[in-house]
Amino acid sequence: MKNVALILAGCGVYDGSEIYESVLTMLSLENHEASYQCFAPDLEQMHVVNHLSGEVAEGERRNVLVESARLARGRIKNLSEASAADFDAVIVPGGFGVAKNLSDFASKGAEMCVQPEVLNFIQAVHKANKPVGLICIAPTMAAKIFGPGVKCTIGSDVDTSAAITAMGGNHQVCAVDEVCIDEELKLVTTPAYMLAGSIAEAARGINRCVREVLNMA
Amino acid sequence: MKNVALILAGCGVYDGSEIYESVLTMLSLENHEASYQCFAPDLEQMHVVNHLSGEVAEGERRNVLVESARLARGRIKNLSEASAADFDAVIVPGGFGVAKNLSDFASKGAEMCVQPEVLNFIQAVHKANKPVGLICIAPTMAAKIFGPGVKCTIGSDVDTSAAITAMGGNHQVCAVDEVCIDEELKLVTTPAYMLAGSIAEAARGINRCVREVLNMA
Repeated sequence: MKNVALILAGCGVYDGSEIYESVLTMLSLENHEASYQCFAPDLEQMHVVNHLSGEVAEGERRNVLVESARLARGRIKNLSEASAADFDAVIVPGGFGVAKNLSDFASKGAEMCVQPEVLNFIQAVHKANKPVGLICIAPTMAAKIFGPGVKCTIGSDVDTSAAITAMGGNHQVCAVDEVCIDEELKLVTTPAYMLAGSIAEAARGINRCVREVLNMA
Repeated sequence: MKNVALILAGCGVYDGSEIYESVLTMLSLENHEASYQCFAPDLEQMHVVNHLSGEVAEGERRNVLVESARLARGRIKNLSEASAADFDAVIVPGGFGVAKNLSDFASKGAEMCVQPEVLNFIQAVHKANKPVGLICIAPTMAAKIFGPGVKCTIGSDVDTSAAITAMGGNHQVCAVDEVCIDEELKLVTTPAYMLAGSIAEAARGINRCVREVLNMA
């Protein structure tokens, strides 16, 4: 049974991991008879967004690991404890938390950095010749993780793909039910809610992403 | 296209709606070509549970509608605005939030009350001869909504089923991939995470629940 690490970024599309993408990834892994372990970094969220109003909740503070635990029914570990040797692959679902907590893409754009534990773990998985899946907005981290020339997609969003290009990434336009594969680097990316209009639509691309990651594992 | 109201109770198994059950319900509705609208009452959560430690987060306060909005990507309405005439059915996913925010079953047991807006809306749907789906722990509300004799299941948990019996409910033991149907009252219940060991397992009962609710709508 293949064992996959999932990196979460909180719980909620506007300040954490996209909930539907995270659940669809876990469900797809189960349906492919793979096991998984959720991880998140133990750090404060960039901010808390009121998902009813869409506004930042001034003065509220939440922890990425604690909120991510909601998505894992408590079965989650601190990313600092993750060892690449224990896993056959790593997948990062999307949500603005990836660009706010796992990196600073939301505020810095192409000048972004990936959070050090996230960067080190994914690079360690990659250096062990194991595949990586990045969903939705998560491929904005690809050039910083894999270096210039990495082939990836965030769908068709002009500003985000321009930022990927500025960082040295090789952005490919991709439909919501398709994946983009960099065979050499073993990186699979899919647009999900960068394009999806429904959960079922996001599921099609995510299922393909999970299948391709497991095929390469 | 059939249109279903979903009532949410926050976001997270220990103090809100169970995330997997909620997403699986929405996905199943989409796959059955039904539309849905999420609702939640605008009130303070009973408490906030740190899902990493399992402990109550003392001093933290969150609002049921605002947190439920995370599960709906912001597309949610105040339950006070819901009209039974606009919907063909109502479904309530599980999670401790149902027993903490939509009712006080978690603290009162068989002496519980259902939150008035939740009670009024579900009873209005029922009085319009439309079906109701209650998932996981949500059937603890059945006797208070439908009255004595209502047939329902929460799976096989002895304490919870005894409380249902004490309230006048007619509890049926039920497997995780099955549903319990009260044909006369048009109530469909399924155990989901009262018994499920995986998302895929919960999905089987929830898909059946959604199908039966839509069939009766």
